[in-house]
Amino acid sequence: MKQEHIDQINEAVRAVASKERINHFYFVACGGSQAFLMPGQYLFDREIEIPSSVYSSNEFVHRAPKALGPDSVVITCSHSGNTPETVKAAEVSREKGATTIALSNLVDSPLWKASEYCLHYDWRDADESDKNKGILYRLLFSVLNTIQPCEKYQKGIDAVDHLNGVIEDAKTKYADRLKEWGSKYKRETLIYTMASGASYGEAYSFTSCLLMEMQWIHSSAIHSGEYFHGPFEITDFDVPFIIIKGVGATRPLDDRAYAFCKKYSNEIMLVDEAEFDMTGIDEEVQEYFAPLLAGAVLRSLADEFAYQRGHDLGVRRYMWRMEY
Amino acid sequence: MKQEHIDQINEAVRAVASKERINHFYFVACGGSQAFLMPGQYLFDREIEIPSSVYSSNEFVHRAPKALGPDSVVITCSHSGNTPETVKAAEVSREKGATTIALSNLVDSPLWKASEYCLHYDWRDADESDKNKGILYRLLFSVLNTIQPCEKYQKGIDAVDHLNGVIEDAKTKYADRLKEWGSKYKRETLIYTMASGASYGEAYSFTSCLLMEMQWIHSSAIHSGEYFHGPFEITDFDVPFIIIKGVGATRPLDDRAYAFCKKYSNEIMLVDEAEFDMTGIDEEVQEYFAPLLAGAVLRSLADEFAYQRGHDLGVRRYMWRMEY
Repeated sequence: MKQEHIDQINEAVRAVASKERINHFYFVACGGSQAFLMPGQYLFDREIEIPSSVYSSNEFVHRAPKALGPDSVVITCSHSGNTPETVKAAEVSREKGATTIALSNLVDSPLWKASEYCLHYDWRDADESDKNKGILYRLLFSVLNTIQPCEKYQKGIDAVDHLNGVIEDAKTKYADRLKEWGSKYKRETLIYTMASGASYGEAYSFTSCLLMEMQWIHSSAIHSGEYFHGPFEITDFDVPFIIIKGVGATRPLDDRAYAFCKKYSNEIMLVDEAEFDMTGIDEEVQEYFAPLLAGAVLRSLADEFAYQRGHDLGVRRYMWRMEY
Repeated sequence: MKQEHIDQINEAVRAVASKERINHFYFVACGGSQAFLMPGQYLFDREIEIPSSVYSSNEFVHRAPKALGPDSVVITCSHSGNTPETVKAAEVSREKGATTIALSNLVDSPLWKASEYCLHYDWRDADESDKNKGILYRLLFSVLNTIQPCEKYQKGIDAVDHLNGVIEDAKTKYADRLKEWGSKYKRETLIYTMASGASYGEAYSFTSCLLMEMQWIHSSAIHSGEYFHGPFEITDFDVPFIIIKGVGATRPLDDRAYAFCKKYSNEIMLVDEAEFDMTGIDEEVQEYFAPLLAGAVLRSLADEFAYQRGHDLGVRRYMWRMEY
């Protein structure tokens, strides 16, 4: 990881450490960036005694939680740094005295200016430790170590430095299946995506950003635990589901959903995190990192869909093309 | 409201009041019951300085938030009182020393036995103040008054006593439209539902329980604020959306989603809470109660779909019919 990134993270963590009391961590962003922050709540829930929650930016701004104040820490993200709802969320949080930490690819963006502590991340061909997920995870593990010194801290930091290898391995392992799925499901107009725990954010972003936004395929992210409380009634032999089986505490939920679903649907794409080679990632933190590998596999599936369907991932009919 | 119900609520509220410190309110349930508790988080966010969050029961049990403990209050609900995941969530919470409050239609159910404070609610032909939403709202307003004495308390309690009239009025007002929609959309295989704020739970339960579970219609609950961050790209002239416009703090999100959506889809069913006659409900608490009216209208729409499609709401292919 670049020293500049480490310095930015350390500065934010020092600000968190210097707080006398923290009542709540708020993770606030929109769409794919919101999904990206979801594992943060999962990790904090599992490891520290301060509660946290996730909000879509505009809901957060208008709902204006009364608990938001000097005892709060608000972590936001916007890739462009320009998402107006997220900029506003940072501004509102800062006005209320909360500690504001923002992640963005764009330095000096509006979000950057609205926030006290700004973390830049690289994009595309950079080292994984300097990209958005690497930066977020280093921040999260550093914060948890500050709140409650923890032997998982070093394991988390070390894992970030091994992301390149394990992500490449995961994509290679799934390459043949991705080609087959891309071809087999290219005519589908609706695909459900299921996950739970640390992986739920990957299902949400795949649904909202890859399938709906970039491929115009109808979709819904179903929580594996909620599947049995309504949604499972739409399961049928020809209804396709992508199911992520995590390796963390909520894997039993995914196992159960998968076991049921495969009895009644013939169209399941299974991404099983237990299949991934996680060499270099300590077993105790694998549940947090495996979703990043599942996400990389799903991203490659979207590339394959785009190729097979002749629908480039960059094509939009509304986004960036008109006022909304 | 029956005295027995008031007594049960008062006992739970006294337990909350007697706590030295509360770090967090957890609302925990599955499917429709989870959706039913969602406005609780919204109301608490708006009115009190203690943060709260909503979890699906099995996620809560397996994730096992470290912040859960003697300083927490856990509010659960299961209509039958038998939902194993929710019973387990109450058990785990109680073992950790949290104050556990459960709502159920069934007295002496497993959930009832697992929880310290149990609130019975009536069903079907009862007075609305004694049904699930009446009981929940009286509990919520009583808790908030205990945390932070508040002039909205009495307004909330009074509103509960006026639910019968306003719910009937709302259904009457929408009766013609419901018949028209039931006929017009009876062949649809996919319908999206959008809402935000206090109404999001109504969109979630309509999607999961009414459309997917009871009518086998594909659906997804889209948060009005998230619509612009991916999902809106699937909007097209023939894609049907049900949009709830709330009357609360997040109405601007719904207005924006509706304004955009109606430009590109010809198939919108709008449930506008501003149309409801809320006589007897003080203006200051209307944002919390209007979703109950929207929910009643959507429930009537499901009845109309069931009639027009010849698919009774009680028909299941999996639920209650097999092991899962």
